[in-house]
Amino acid sequence: MKQTKPFAFEILARKGKARAGIFHTPHGSIPTPVFAPVGTQATVKSLTPKQLQEVGASLILSNTYHLFLRPGDELVASLGGLHKFMGWSGPILTDSGGFQVFSLAQMRKIDDDGVSFKSHIDGSIQRLTPERSIKIQENLGADIIMAFDECAEPYDRRYNEQAMRRTHTWAERCRDTKTRHDQSLFGIVQGGVFPDLREQSASFISSLDFSGHAIGGLSVGETKAEMREIVNQVTDILPEDKPRYLMGVGTPADILSGVELGIDIFDCVLPTRLARHHAAMTTTGRLNMMNAAFSKDNEPIDASCKCYTCRNFSRAYLRHLITAREMLAASLLSIHNIHTLIRTITSLRDEILQYQQTARKTR
Amino acid sequence: MKQTKPFAFEILARKGKARAGIFHTPHGSIPTPVFAPVGTQATVKSLTPKQLQEVGASLILSNTYHLFLRPGDELVASLGGLHKFMGWSGPILTDSGGFQVFSLAQMRKIDDDGVSFKSHIDGSIQRLTPERSIKIQENLGADIIMAFDECAEPYDRRYNEQAMRRTHTWAERCRDTKTRHDQSLFGIVQGGVFPDLREQSASFISSLDFSGHAIGGLSVGETKAEMREIVNQVTDILPEDKPRYLMGVGTPADILSGVELGIDIFDCVLPTRLARHHAAMTTTGRLNMMNAAFSKDNEPIDASCKCYTCRNFSRAYLRHLITAREMLAASLLSIHNIHTLIRTITSLRDEILQYQQTARKTR
Repeated sequence: MKQTKPFAFEILARKGKARAGIFHTPHGSIPTPVFAPVGTQATVKSLTPKQLQEVGASLILSNTYHLFLRPGDELVASLGGLHKFMGWSGPILTDSGGFQVFSLAQMRKIDDDGVSFKSHIDGSIQRLTPERSIKIQENLGADIIMAFDECAEPYDRRYNEQAMRRTHTWAERCRDTKTRHDQSLFGIVQGGVFPDLREQSASFISSLDFSGHAIGGLSVGETKAEMREIVNQVTDILPEDKPRYLMGVGTPADILSGVELGIDIFDCVLPTRLARHHAAMTTTGRLNMMNAAFSKDNEPIDASCKCYTCRNFSRAYLRHLITAREMLAASLLSIHNIHTLIRTITSLRDEILQYQQTARKTR
Repeated sequence: MKQTKPFAFEILARKGKARAGIFHTPHGSIPTPVFAPVGTQATVKSLTPKQLQEVGASLILSNTYHLFLRPGDELVASLGGLHKFMGWSGPILTDSGGFQVFSLAQMRKIDDDGVSFKSHIDGSIQRLTPERSIKIQENLGADIIMAFDECAEPYDRRYNEQAMRRTHTWAERCRDTKTRHDQSLFGIVQGGVFPDLREQSASFISSLDFSGHAIGGLSVGETKAEMREIVNQVTDILPEDKPRYLMGVGTPADILSGVELGIDIFDCVLPTRLARHHAAMTTTGRLNMMNAAFSKDNEPIDASCKCYTCRNFSRAYLRHLITAREMLAASLLSIHNIHTLIRTITSLRDEILQYQQTARKTR
């Protein structure tokens, strides 16, 4: 087998701006475009790593903010790092903690050096800085780690200018702090819904020699059209030869749109969160499996789906589990929902590969 | 492969009263002695059928009372029966509903014909009779079904006399009602802690030509010594050539004792219930995985255990999942606990097989 340098990113095929590739990491190669299920607290809710593997996951995300607060990054390091701790031997991405500080923590106080906040778990006062975020992520030991950024409310121009400037300084500090060579650090583009800020941010972040780039501050309240425009604008600026990650985005429609615009990595809590709220994602929309109409329905959630849940269980059974408040409902729906997103993105990848092949043949 | 008649029971080896055998059912052969995990509501809580298979389960139990009330036995029948409904293709045993009527239902009124009670789910008035219980179990379609019995408080002599008499009449009515040939009907011995009643009951039930026998009314408040004595007495009376089932019993110590006294089948909610309450069963006792002492403990629950949980996760990780209220904690502990009981009983079975082999060689 060919030995490939860790973090080499191979683009195998293109179709317009869309790319199909492979991103090599120390814990395995990731076929891109890829959807990463989210394991906030070092577990993708209700699923074992074995089930995740069976459902086709090749990359998972875990949250620095949560693991820093509980059980603590130093503890995870002393137990052998996040891969060993959670029993997942494939690639992992950790976010920087930035987004959660701004969305979950109480009483946060931001200054140019970092953020102080009250833990949502025990009320203790905590502090995150770019240096601390990188140190935590080095303790956790994910394959892909993220620069610490400030995620502003998307329509507030003044706040976005300030947050972007901080994000840029913090990105440099993160780059300078990083010590591990078995981790790939991605920079994050901010700038809200403002094209000039997004352009400034994409250009500046691109100049810092990160091994990948993320678009942050989207899917937080802006319209679909705005998201699409910003992604299109930013992917025009980001270097071609490095992976691009659209953070926190994960409806089938958003994935389709993102792939078309040249995004390689997606993550979202949606499939597991919907599963816990009894919703099944299908290629034709969402189904509320609690619906009485399903009580005698012997068909699977989606007849075209080949996931473990659809191969073995009827809608009636899933509805029964939900009605009887059985935990298995969440597991089976999570399997189906994650599989649906992975299947969506895999078929987009196949389409790009196929297109290039056809293009070659007709040349 | 040898074709064996459904419900043939082969005894392969003996050691004192203990037996190692195989019980053949239409959905597969069960190595005995066997421990059956309980899937009350057509799901062994928090586990997929695939996980159950991987953990070594060869027989599972489901509760007639619960499935009758929700989703309804006729619905299950119309969807193809319980095996298909819950995605478990191996052998299933259903109880008769009797025990739950006496332990869960409200406002029950017993007469010689049957029991009326208020559903614990919606307060509706329901009725179970021996005929109805068999009809429900035929609709569910388990491989092993149970006669409808009355489970009395173990120390009330008068009540036990009356309940035993009813149980006997009901056993005959169940036998006469049964129509399906792909189901094996077991009779149940009652009689509380009273040796003369147990003797009467074991003799009477043995005379009815059931294809297997169960000992009911134990593990409901009597002492361990009393349970042991009754089991010993009853297994002396029950025919040798049919499987014996000790209902609702499932601590490692009770299984050891039961196997020694000639029991072939056990079931218990204990491993999954303990799992949901953070307790791990080990060969040397129970561990409360929430215990702070485990927070930095990088060892598996039980170093001698080969289950998925012990092969992949530390005590510290399990404690983290529990502290973070993650559902995966219950799944991983259920896998470990069920595996521990199956491992206990498998090693007892191996011991019996080994003993007979050695005995043969030295002859």
